[in-house]
Amino acid sequence: MAGGKDPKRDEHLVERKLASEEILKGNFLHAFRDQVELPDGSRATREYVVHPGAVMVIPLLDDGRLVLERQYRYPMHAVMVEFPAGKLDPGEDRLACAKRELLEETGYSAKEWALAGVLHPVISYSTEFIEIWFARGLTLHKATLDEGEFLEVITATPQELMAWCRDGTVTDAKTLAGALWLQNFLAGTWKIDWRP
Amino acid sequence: MAGGKDPKRDEHLVERKLASEEILKGNFLHAFRDQVELPDGSRATREYVVHPGAVMVIPLLDDGRLVLERQYRYPMHAVMVEFPAGKLDPGEDRLACAKRELLEETGYSAKEWALAGVLHPVISYSTEFIEIWFARGLTLHKATLDEGEFLEVITATPQELMAWCRDGTVTDAKTLAGALWLQNFLAGTWKIDWRP
Repeated sequence: MAGGKDPKRDEHLVERKLASEEILKGNFLHAFRDQVELPDGSRATREYVVHPGAVMVIPLLDDGRLVLERQYRYPMHAVMVEFPAGKLDPGEDRLACAKRELLEETGYSAKEWALAGVLHPVISYSTEFIEIWFARGLTLHKATLDEGEFLEVITATPQELMAWCRDGTVTDAKTLAGALWLQNFLAGTWKIDWRP
Repeated sequence: MAGGKDPKRDEHLVERKLASEEILKGNFLHAFRDQVELPDGSRATREYVVHPGAVMVIPLLDDGRLVLERQYRYPMHAVMVEFPAGKLDPGEDRLACAKRELLEETGYSAKEWALAGVLHPVISYSTEFIEIWFARGLTLHKATLDEGEFLEVITATPQELMAWCRDGTVTDAKTLAGALWLQNFLAGTWKIDWRP
Protein backbone atom coordinates (compact mmCIF):
# COMPACT_ATOMS: atom_id res chain seq x y z
CA MET A 1 0.00 0.00 0.00
CA ALA A 2 1.47 3.31 -1.10
CA GLY A 3 -0.93 5.68 0.67
CA GLY A 4 -3.70 5.44 3.23
CA LYS A 5 -3.55 4.56 6.88
CA ASP A 6 -1.33 1.80 8.21
CA PRO A 7 -0.57 2.75 11.81
CA LYS A 8 2.23 0.22 12.27
CA ARG A 9 3.99 0.88 9.01
CA ASP A 10 3.57 4.64 9.30
CA GLU A 11 4.63 5.14 12.92
CA HIS A 12 7.62 7.16 11.66
CA LEU A 13 5.32 9.60 9.81
CA VAL A 14 2.14 10.02 11.87
CA GLU A 15 1.35 13.17 13.87
CA ARG A 16 -0.93 12.98 16.91
CA LYS A 17 -3.38 15.65 18.07
CA LEU A 18 -2.71 17.01 21.56
CA ALA A 19 -5.11 19.96 21.58
CA SER A 20 -7.25 21.97 19.19
CA GLU A 21 -8.52 25.56 19.21
CA GLU A 22 -10.76 27.45 16.81
CA ILE A 23 -8.85 30.41 15.37
CA LEU A 24 -11.37 31.70 12.82
CA LYS A 25 -15.13 31.46 12.50
CA GLY A 26 -15.88 33.55 9.45
CA ASN A 27 -18.89 33.65 7.20
CA PHE A 28 -17.24 31.02 5.06
CA LEU A 29 -13.80 30.14 6.42
CA HIS A 30 -13.62 28.05 9.58
CA ALA A 31 -10.11 27.41 10.81
CA PHE A 32 -8.40 25.58 13.67
CA ARG A 33 -4.93 25.42 15.18
CA ASP A 34 -3.97 22.06 16.65
CA GLN A 35 -1.03 21.22 18.84
CA VAL A 36 0.47 17.96 17.57
CA GLU A 37 3.12 15.49 18.58
CA LEU A 38 5.54 14.70 15.74
CA PRO A 39 6.96 11.23 15.09
CA ASP A 40 10.12 12.05 17.10
CA GLY A 41 8.08 13.19 20.10
CA SER A 42 8.62 16.89 19.50
CA ARG A 43 5.74 19.37 19.27
CA ALA A 44 4.39 21.52 16.45
CA THR A 45 1.24 23.42 15.49
CA ARG A 46 -0.95 22.71 12.47
CA GLU A 47 -3.41 25.29 11.14
CA TYR A 48 -6.14 24.25 8.74
CA VAL A 49 -9.52 25.11 7.30
CA VAL A 50 -12.47 22.80 8.00
CA HIS A 51 -14.59 22.30 4.89
CA PRO A 52 -17.83 20.32 4.43
CA GLY A 53 -16.64 18.65 1.22
CA ALA A 54 -17.87 19.08 -2.33
CA VAL A 55 -18.73 17.29 -5.53
CA MET A 56 -17.63 17.93 -9.10
CA VAL A 57 -19.45 16.75 -12.21
CA ILE A 58 -17.95 15.86 -15.61
CA PRO A 59 -21.05 16.30 -17.82
CA LEU A 60 -20.93 14.48 -21.18
CA LEU A 61 -23.31 15.69 -23.89
CA ASP A 62 -24.69 13.14 -26.37
CA ASP A 63 -22.62 14.73 -29.18
CA GLY A 64 -19.40 14.12 -27.24
CA ARG A 65 -18.98 17.68 -26.00
CA LEU A 66 -18.51 18.62 -22.33
CA VAL A 67 -20.42 21.13 -20.24
CA LEU A 68 -18.12 23.58 -18.44
CA GLU A 69 -18.47 26.87 -16.59
CA ARG A 70 -16.72 30.20 -16.75
CA GLN A 71 -16.83 31.84 -13.35
CA TYR A 72 -15.04 34.75 -11.69
CA ARG A 73 -13.01 33.42 -8.81
CA TYR A 74 -12.25 36.28 -6.48
CA PRO A 75 -9.00 34.99 -4.91
CA MET A 76 -7.64 34.50 -8.46
CA HIS A 77 -8.96 37.85 -9.75
CA ALA A 78 -9.78 35.99 -12.95
CA VAL A 79 -12.51 34.13 -14.78
CA MET A 80 -11.74 30.42 -14.50
CA VAL A 81 -12.91 27.54 -16.69
CA GLU A 82 -14.17 24.70 -14.50
CA PHE A 83 -16.28 21.62 -14.34
CA PRO A 84 -19.51 22.28 -12.39
CA ALA A 85 -19.02 21.77 -8.66
CA GLY A 86 -20.48 22.74 -5.34
CA LYS A 87 -20.31 22.24 -1.60
CA LEU A 88 -22.31 19.58 0.21
CA ASP A 89 -25.20 20.84 2.31
CA PRO A 90 -25.21 19.43 5.86
CA GLY A 91 -26.16 15.74 5.73
CA GLU A 92 -26.61 15.83 1.95
CA ASP A 93 -26.07 12.66 -0.08
CA ARG A 94 -23.17 13.16 -2.50
CA LEU A 95 -24.96 12.04 -5.64
CA ALA A 96 -27.96 14.18 -4.67
CA CYS A 97 -25.55 17.12 -4.35
CA ALA A 98 -24.04 16.36 -7.76
CA LYS A 99 -27.52 16.34 -9.34
CA ARG A 100 -28.52 19.54 -7.54
CA GLU A 101 -25.38 21.46 -8.45
CA LEU A 102 -25.44 20.36 -12.10
CA LEU A 103 -29.07 21.44 -12.46
CA GLU A 104 -28.76 24.69 -10.48
CA GLU A 105 -25.58 25.87 -12.17
CA THR A 106 -25.95 24.61 -15.73
CA GLY A 107 -29.64 23.70 -16.13
CA TYR A 108 -28.83 20.11 -17.10
CA SER A 109 -30.22 16.91 -15.62
CA ALA A 110 -28.64 13.53 -16.43
CA LYS A 111 -30.04 10.05 -17.05
CA GLU A 112 -26.94 8.24 -15.85
CA TRP A 113 -24.26 8.86 -13.27
CA ALA A 114 -20.93 7.19 -12.44
CA LEU A 115 -18.67 7.78 -9.46
CA ALA A 116 -15.06 8.23 -10.56
CA GLY A 117 -13.10 8.97 -7.40
CA VAL A 118 -12.17 11.67 -4.96
CA LEU A 119 -9.56 14.39 -4.86
CA HIS A 120 -8.16 16.48 -2.04
CA PRO A 121 -7.38 19.99 -3.30
CA VAL A 122 -5.21 21.25 -0.48
CA ILE A 123 -3.91 18.52 1.78
CA SER A 124 -1.60 20.84 3.71
CA TYR A 125 -4.24 23.24 5.07
CA SER A 126 -7.83 22.16 4.42
CA THR A 127 -9.97 19.12 5.14
CA GLU A 128 -11.78 19.60 1.82
CA PHE A 129 -12.51 16.61 -0.40
CA ILE A 130 -14.16 16.73 -3.83
CA GLU A 131 -15.98 13.66 -5.09
CA ILE A 132 -15.77 13.29 -8.88
CA TRP A 133 -18.85 12.15 -10.84
CA PHE A 134 -19.48 11.57 -14.53
CA ALA A 135 -22.95 12.41 -15.91
CA ARG A 136 -24.43 11.49 -19.31
CA GLY A 137 -27.79 11.44 -21.03
CA LEU A 138 -28.11 15.19 -20.43
CA THR A 139 -31.33 17.18 -20.87
CA LEU A 140 -31.34 20.97 -20.71
CA HIS A 141 -33.83 22.65 -18.37
CA LYS A 142 -33.27 26.06 -16.81
CA ALA A 143 -30.41 27.00 -14.51
CA THR A 144 -31.45 28.48 -11.14
CA LEU A 145 -28.33 30.09 -9.74
CA ASP A 146 -28.05 30.94 -6.06
CA GLU A 147 -28.46 34.61 -5.25
CA GLY A 148 -25.14 36.35 -5.80
CA GLU A 149 -23.90 33.58 -8.11
CA PHE A 150 -22.87 34.60 -11.63
CA LEU A 151 -21.48 32.20 -14.17
CA GLU A 152 -21.50 31.35 -17.84
CA VAL A 153 -22.14 27.84 -19.17
CA ILE A 154 -20.00 26.79 -22.13
CA THR A 155 -19.38 23.56 -24.03
CA ALA A 156 -16.13 22.19 -25.39
CA THR A 157 -14.87 19.04 -27.03
CA PRO A 158 -12.52 16.84 -25.00
CA GLN A 159 -9.77 17.88 -27.43
CA GLU A 160 -10.43 21.55 -26.69
CA LEU A 161 -10.39 20.89 -22.95
CA MET A 162 -7.08 19.03 -23.19
CA ALA A 163 -5.59 21.89 -25.23
CA TRP A 164 -6.76 24.34 -22.55
CA CYS A 165 -5.15 22.20 -19.81
CA ARG A 166 -1.92 22.29 -21.72
CA ASP A 167 -1.87 25.98 -22.67
CA GLY A 168 -2.82 27.33 -19.24
CA THR A 169 -6.42 28.31 -20.03
CA VAL A 170 -7.46 25.71 -17.44
CA THR A 171 -5.42 25.78 -14.22
CA ASP A 172 -8.10 24.83 -11.68
CA ALA A 173 -6.79 21.72 -9.94
CA LYS A 174 -10.12 19.91 -9.69
CA THR A 175 -10.74 20.44 -13.40
CA LEU A 176 -7.22 19.20 -14.25
CA ALA A 177 -7.91 16.09 -12.14
CA GLY A 178 -11.24 15.75 -13.99
CA ALA A 179 -9.36 15.95 -17.29
CA LEU A 180 -7.13 13.07 -16.15
CA TRP A 181 -10.25 10.98 -15.44
CA LEU A 182 -11.86 12.04 -18.71
CA GLN A 183 -8.80 11.21 -20.80
CA ASN A 184 -8.51 7.73 -19.32
CA PHE A 185 -12.27 7.08 -19.43
CA LEU A 186 -12.43 8.06 -23.10
CA ALA A 187 -9.36 5.93 -23.86
CA GLY A 188 -11.16 2.97 -22.29
CA THR A 189 -8.38 2.39 -19.76
CA TRP A 190 -10.27 3.53 -16.64
CA LYS A 191 -13.69 1.86 -16.35
CA ILE A 192 -16.58 3.41 -14.46
CA ASP A 193 -19.97 1.97 -13.48
CA TRP A 194 -23.02 3.85 -14.72
CA ARG A 195 -26.22 3.92 -12.68
CA PRO A 196 -29.54 5.72 -13.20
CA MET B 1 -10.46 32.82 -25.11
CA ALA B 2 -12.09 30.43 -22.65
CA GLY B 3 -10.49 31.67 -19.42
CA GLY B 4 -8.29 34.50 -18.28
CA LYS B 5 -9.00 38.18 -18.06
CA ASP B 6 -11.02 40.01 -20.66
CA PRO B 7 -12.63 42.94 -18.84
CA LYS B 8 -15.07 43.81 -21.62
CA ARG B 9 -16.23 40.31 -22.36
CA ASP B 10 -16.45 39.38 -18.69
CA GLU B 11 -18.27 42.44 -17.35
CA HIS B 12 -21.22 40.16 -16.43
CA LEU B 13 -18.97 37.97 -14.26
CA VAL B 14 -16.37 40.21 -12.61
CA GLU B 15 -16.47 41.13 -8.91
CA ARG B 16 -14.84 44.36 -7.67
CA LYS B 17 -13.10 44.91 -4.35
CA LEU B 18 -14.65 47.61 -2.16
CA ALA B 19 -12.77 46.96 1.09
CA SER B 20 -10.50 44.39 2.67
CA GLU B 21 -9.79 43.39 6.27
CA GLU B 22 -7.40 40.86 7.76
CA ILE B 23 -9.38 38.25 9.68
CA LEU B 24 -6.62 35.81 10.64
CA LYS B 25 -2.87 36.14 11.08
CA GLY B 26 -1.85 32.69 12.23
CA ASN B 27 1.53 31.00 12.27
CA PHE B 28 0.75 29.65 8.82
CA LEU B 29 -2.74 30.73 7.73
CA HIS B 30 -3.23 34.34 6.70
CA ALA B 31 -6.82 35.20 5.78
CA PHE B 32 -8.77 38.22 4.58
CA ARG B 33 -12.42 39.18 4.21
CA ASP B 34 -13.17 41.52 1.31
CA GLN B 35 -16.35 43.42 0.59
CA VAL B 36 -17.07 43.10 -3.13
CA GLU B 37 -19.48 44.47 -5.67
CA LEU B 38 -21.12 41.75 -7.74
CA PRO B 39 -21.85 42.08 -11.48
CA ASP B 40 -25.44 43.23 -10.75
CA GLY B 41 -24.25 45.94 -8.35
CA SER B 42 -25.20 44.06 -5.20
CA ARG B 43 -22.72 43.43 -2.37
CA ALA B 44 -21.15 40.29 -0.95
CA THR B 45 -18.17 39.22 1.17
CA ARG B 46 -15.33 36.97 0.04
CA GLU B 47 -13.04 35.24 2.53
CA TYR B 48 -9.77 33.74 1.39
CA VAL B 49 -6.32 32.61 2.44
CA VAL B 50 -3.28 34.46 1.11
CA HIS B 51 -0.52 32.04 0.13
CA PRO B 52 3.00 32.76 -1.20
CA GLY B 53 2.73 30.13 -3.96
CA ALA B 54 4.58 26.87 -4.39
CA VAL B 55 6.34 24.61 -6.85
CA MET B 56 5.90 20.91 -7.56
CA VAL B 57 8.48 18.67 -9.23
CA ILE B 58 7.85 15.59 -11.39
CA PRO B 59 11.24 13.85 -11.02
CA LEU B 60 12.06 11.30 -13.76
CA LEU B 61 14.75 8.74 -12.97
CA ASP B 62 16.96 7.46 -15.81
CA ASP B 63 15.28 4.02 -15.61
CA GLY B 64 11.86 5.58 -16.24
CA ARG B 65 10.69 5.48 -12.64
CA LEU B 66 9.37 8.49 -10.74
CA VAL B 67 10.41 9.88 -7.37
CA LEU B 68 7.46 10.41 -5.02
CA GLU B 69 6.95 11.08 -1.33
CA ARG B 70 4.79 9.57 1.37
CA GLN B 71 3.98 12.20 3.95
CA TYR B 72 1.50 12.51 6.79
CA ARG B 73 -0.89 15.34 6.02
CA TYR B 74 -2.51 16.42 9.22
CA PRO B 75 -5.79 17.86 7.83
CA MET B 76 -6.31 14.52 6.02
CA HIS B 77 -5.26 12.38 9.03
CA ALA B 78 -3.55 10.14 6.49
CA VAL B 79 -0.26 9.47 4.77
CA MET B 80 -0.52 10.85 1.24
CA VAL B 81 1.49 9.96 -1.87
CA GLU B 82 2.68 13.13 -3.59
CA PHE B 83 5.15 14.61 -5.97
CA PRO B 84 7.77 16.67 -4.11
CA ALA B 85 6.59 20.24 -3.57
CA GLY B 86 7.18 23.21 -1.36
CA LYS B 87 6.35 26.85 -0.73
CA LEU B 88 8.30 29.70 -2.24
CA ASP B 89 10.49 31.65 0.14
CA PRO B 90 9.98 35.43 -0.09
CA GLY B 91 11.45 36.67 -3.37
CA GLU B 92 12.67 33.22 -4.35
CA ASP B 93 13.00 32.30 -8.01
CA ARG B 94 10.63 29.47 -8.86
CA LEU B 95 13.16 27.17 -10.49
CA ALA B 96 15.55 27.79 -7.60
CA CYS B 97 12.73 26.78 -5.27
CA ALA B 98 12.06 23.62 -7.29
CA LYS B 99 15.76 22.68 -7.10
CA ARG B 100 15.91 23.41 -3.37
CA GLU B 101 12.76 21.47 -2.49
CA LEU B 102 13.73 18.45 -4.60
CA LEU B 103 17.15 18.29 -2.97
CA GLU B 104 15.99 18.98 0.60
CA GLU B 105 13.07 16.56 0.53
CA THR B 106 14.34 13.71 -1.65
CA GLY B 107 18.13 14.18 -1.86
CA TYR B 108 18.06 14.38 -5.67
CA SER B 109 19.57 17.01 -7.90
CA ALA B 110 18.69 17.18 -11.63
CA LYS B 111 20.68 17.94 -14.77
CA GLU B 112 17.69 19.23 -16.74
CA TRP B 113 14.48 21.04 -15.92
CA ALA B 114 11.34 21.88 -17.90
CA LEU B 115 8.46 24.13 -16.90
CA ALA B 116 5.12 22.42 -17.56
CA GLY B 117 2.49 24.83 -16.30
CA VAL B 118 0.70 26.07 -13.25
CA LEU B 119 -2.25 24.86 -11.21
CA HIS B 120 -4.50 26.60 -8.71
CA PRO B 121 -5.48 24.13 -5.98
CA VAL B 122 -8.34 26.02 -4.39
CA ILE B 123 -9.67 28.85 -6.50
CA SER B 124 -12.64 29.54 -4.23
CA TYR B 125 -10.72 30.40 -1.05
CA SER B 126 -6.95 30.66 -1.52
CA THR B 127 -4.58 32.66 -3.70
CA GLU B 128 -2.22 29.67 -3.88
CA PHE B 129 -0.62 28.69 -7.19
CA ILE B 130 1.67 25.73 -7.78
CA GLU B 131 4.12 25.83 -10.66
CA ILE B 132 4.75 22.40 -12.20
CA TRP B 133 8.29 21.42 -13.21
CA PHE B 134 9.73 18.25 -14.75
CA ALA B 135 13.23 17.20 -13.67
CA ARG B 136 15.50 14.57 -15.27
CA GLY B 137 19.10 13.46 -15.14
CA LEU B 138 18.76 12.82 -11.40
CA THR B 139 21.67 12.21 -9.02
CA LEU B 140 21.10 11.08 -5.44
CA HIS B 141 22.78 13.06 -2.66
CA LYS B 142 21.44 13.31 0.87
CA ALA B 143 18.05 14.72 1.86
CA THR B 144 18.15 17.50 4.46
CA LEU B 145 14.61 17.81 5.76
CA ASP B 146 13.46 20.90 7.60
CA GLU B 147 13.18 20.49 11.35
CA GLY B 148 9.82 18.89 12.13
CA GLU B 149 9.48 17.51 8.60
CA PHE B 150 9.07 13.75 8.28
CA LEU B 151 8.58 11.98 4.97
CA GLU B 152 9.48 8.85 3.07
CA VAL B 153 10.88 8.89 -0.46
CA ILE B 154 9.57 6.17 -2.78
CA THR B 155 9.83 5.40 -6.49
CA ALA B 156 7.15 4.12 -8.84
CA THR B 157 6.73 3.45 -12.53
CA PRO B 158 4.36 5.74 -14.44
CA GLN B 159 2.04 2.74 -14.77
CA GLU B 160 1.99 2.29 -10.98
CA LEU B 161 1.29 5.98 -10.48
CA MET B 162 -1.60 5.89 -12.94
CA ALA B 163 -3.05 2.83 -11.20
CA TRP B 164 -2.81 4.67 -7.87
CA CYS B 165 -4.60 7.70 -9.35
CA ARG B 166 -7.38 5.42 -10.52
CA ASP B 167 -7.77 3.29 -7.37
CA GLY B 168 -7.74 6.17 -4.88
CA THR B 169 -4.23 5.63 -3.49
CA VAL B 170 -3.36 9.07 -4.92
CA THR B 171 -6.01 11.75 -4.28
CA ASP B 172 -3.79 14.82 -3.85
CA ALA B 173 -4.97 17.28 -6.49
CA LYS B 174 -1.52 18.62 -7.41
CA THR B 175 -0.25 15.07 -7.92
CA LEU B 176 -3.30 14.18 -10.06
CA ALA B 177 -2.62 17.28 -12.16
CA GLY B 178 1.02 16.17 -12.36
CA ALA B 179 -0.15 12.74 -13.56
CA LEU B 180 -2.11 14.45 -16.35
CA TRP B 181 1.06 16.26 -17.44
CA LEU B 182 3.15 13.11 -17.12
CA GLN B 183 0.73 10.99 -19.16
CA ASN B 184 0.65 13.50 -22.00
CA PHE B 185 4.39 14.16 -21.87
CA LEU B 186 5.17 10.44 -22.04
CA ALA B 187 2.65 9.99 -24.89
CA GLY B 188 4.50 12.72 -26.79
CA THR B 189 1.37 14.86 -27.13
CA TRP B 190 2.40 17.66 -24.74
CA LYS B 191 5.89 18.99 -25.50
CA ILE B 192 8.09 20.67 -22.91
CA ASP B 193 11.37 22.54 -23.27
CA TRP B 194 14.30 21.19 -21.27
CA ARG B 195 16.97 23.53 -19.94
CA PRO B 196 20.03 22.93 -17.73
